[in-house]
Amino acid sequence: MTAVDKLRAACRDSGAMLSVGLEPAPQYLRGGFDANVSGYEAYLRLIIDATVDVAAAYKFNLAFFEAMGSRGMALLERIRDTIPRDTFVIMDAKRGDIGSTAKMYAEALFEHLGADAVTVNPLMGRDSAVPFLEYTDRLTYFLVLTSNPGAADFLLADGLYRKIAAALTFWAEAGNAGFVIGATRGEEIAEVRGLAADVPFLVPGVGAQGGDLERVVKLGARQGSVGDPSVDPGLLFHVTRGVLPDVESTEDVGESIRARALAWRDRLQEVMGHGDTA
Amino acid sequence: MTAVDKLRAACRDSGAMLSVGLEPAPQYLRGGFDANVSGYEAYLRLIIDATVDVAAAYKFNLAFFEAMGSRGMALLERIRDTIPRDTFVIMDAKRGDIGSTAKMYAEALFEHLGADAVTVNPLMGRDSAVPFLEYTDRLTYFLVLTSNPGAADFLLADGLYRKIAAALTFWAEAGNAGFVIGATRGEEIAEVRGLAADVPFLVPGVGAQGGDLERVVKLGARQGSVGDPSVDPGLLFHVTRGVLPDVESTEDVGESIRARALAWRDRLQEVMGHGDTA
Repeated sequence: MTAVDKLRAACRDSGAMLSVGLEPAPQYLRGGFDANVSGYEAYLRLIIDATVDVAAAYKFNLAFFEAMGSRGMALLERIRDTIPRDTFVIMDAKRGDIGSTAKMYAEALFEHLGADAVTVNPLMGRDSAVPFLEYTDRLTYFLVLTSNPGAADFLLADGLYRKIAAALTFWAEAGNAGFVIGATRGEEIAEVRGLAADVPFLVPGVGAQGGDLERVVKLGARQGSVGDPSVDPGLLFHVTRGVLPDVESTEDVGESIRARALAWRDRLQEVMGHGDTA
Repeated sequence: MTAVDKLRAACRDSGAMLSVGLEPAPQYLRGGFDANVSGYEAYLRLIIDATVDVAAAYKFNLAFFEAMGSRGMALLERIRDTIPRDTFVIMDAKRGDIGSTAKMYAEALFEHLGADAVTVNPLMGRDSAVPFLEYTDRLTYFLVLTSNPGAADFLLADGLYRKIAAALTFWAEAGNAGFVIGATRGEEIAEVRGLAADVPFLVPGVGAQGGDLERVVKLGARQGSVGDPSVDPGLLFHVTRGVLPDVESTEDVGESIRARALAWRDRLQEVMGHGDTA
């Protein structure tokens, strides 16, 4: 089974192409947990318990674990082990280095941490990408069109995103490259879809960053995927803050997270069911 | 004291602009140590003992520690703690992410691991760079001209390296941006030096990758820096394999590493002392 098969099955089982973030940071803490390893451990387990049948995927943001050092990495290992086998696990690490070092990063993420998918920075070119692509049963999401303001500096300027998208489609002979495509982008999303008809997109930025769900589906859905709300891995929408209650909320945190995840699922089903690829 | 001041002092005290690599990987093991955490720990301590007065800097390649998971990161923390206070410590992590995540990576590397300098991937633009540059007493080396073959795919094509170099010089208001400049490059090195007269370069690729030391000094030295072999941090040359004995060697490993580091120091002194910036 390839990673894309696993992602497709996870989307079907959970009912939507929803990825939920696991980011142990003070600004994402709710419910009075302590901002330390044991507080974050309890909190991340609560998020997983509340969403495990609704999330097709969980995305770990490695930076937040690394800021706590080796104890943070041990926390990541423990939390990763609690995720059910059928759920898709993304290690968001944005690594990228010369070939021999990239090989070690791929080993760290795919083997040691058992990632189904990782995020990779393609700036250093082919030999930095290939060691990830050699894991043909896994998926590597490369940065193509990111959602942050700085994307305008290099990725959007002079069409670098087009060049990266075209090169990766070519390098990934096994069809196991995905793209990170920020929901804040516009017509560029349709342009990248035009270059890469079947490539899975990981789409951050629909929640807190204000990207518009309907627009992204219209611009970026794979041909023929709209109308079936749950089975297409071509657009995997990622939310972190989007499933969390407001800071000042007095609701039960677990119940609130669950309700918000269910609302995202319903909204995704609606948008995919009634969308329009034209 | 800024990081550049510390680097300058470390170069003067050690006698050359030499950075030695700390990479726990089977291909770099010598002397029969085991390829596991305790074997690497003894081996890395041996490398440091053999070179501590000759190396201006040590560069940790994080990938090799991460491949061993949280136990590898704990090893990194222990080894980092054995390095004398006056020696310059580089965490080669090549991180790069949106602003809020970049802030956590900067915290992990500068605060938790106490790096004097880090390597960063600038692809995602200004908001991915600024959280590192905000540590004005540290140095951030950005990827500009890397030594690997894949640099030709995006960095060298359409002059992206020029655009990155110009932007970073502008963004680093405190003058605390450095550049990674591969020794395998040619006239582009002189071009980047022309754009960034005083920027410190971290130069990998002079050893195993075949870059030519004299040529790099001629193309990339700061104006006026040649003639004084030890006090200029404008070019910090990095070697990993270059200080290791051949695999089949029967020499004492510690003595051999020390002899090779001293030979690098002497060669750097000679090249810087007799070089020509014309």
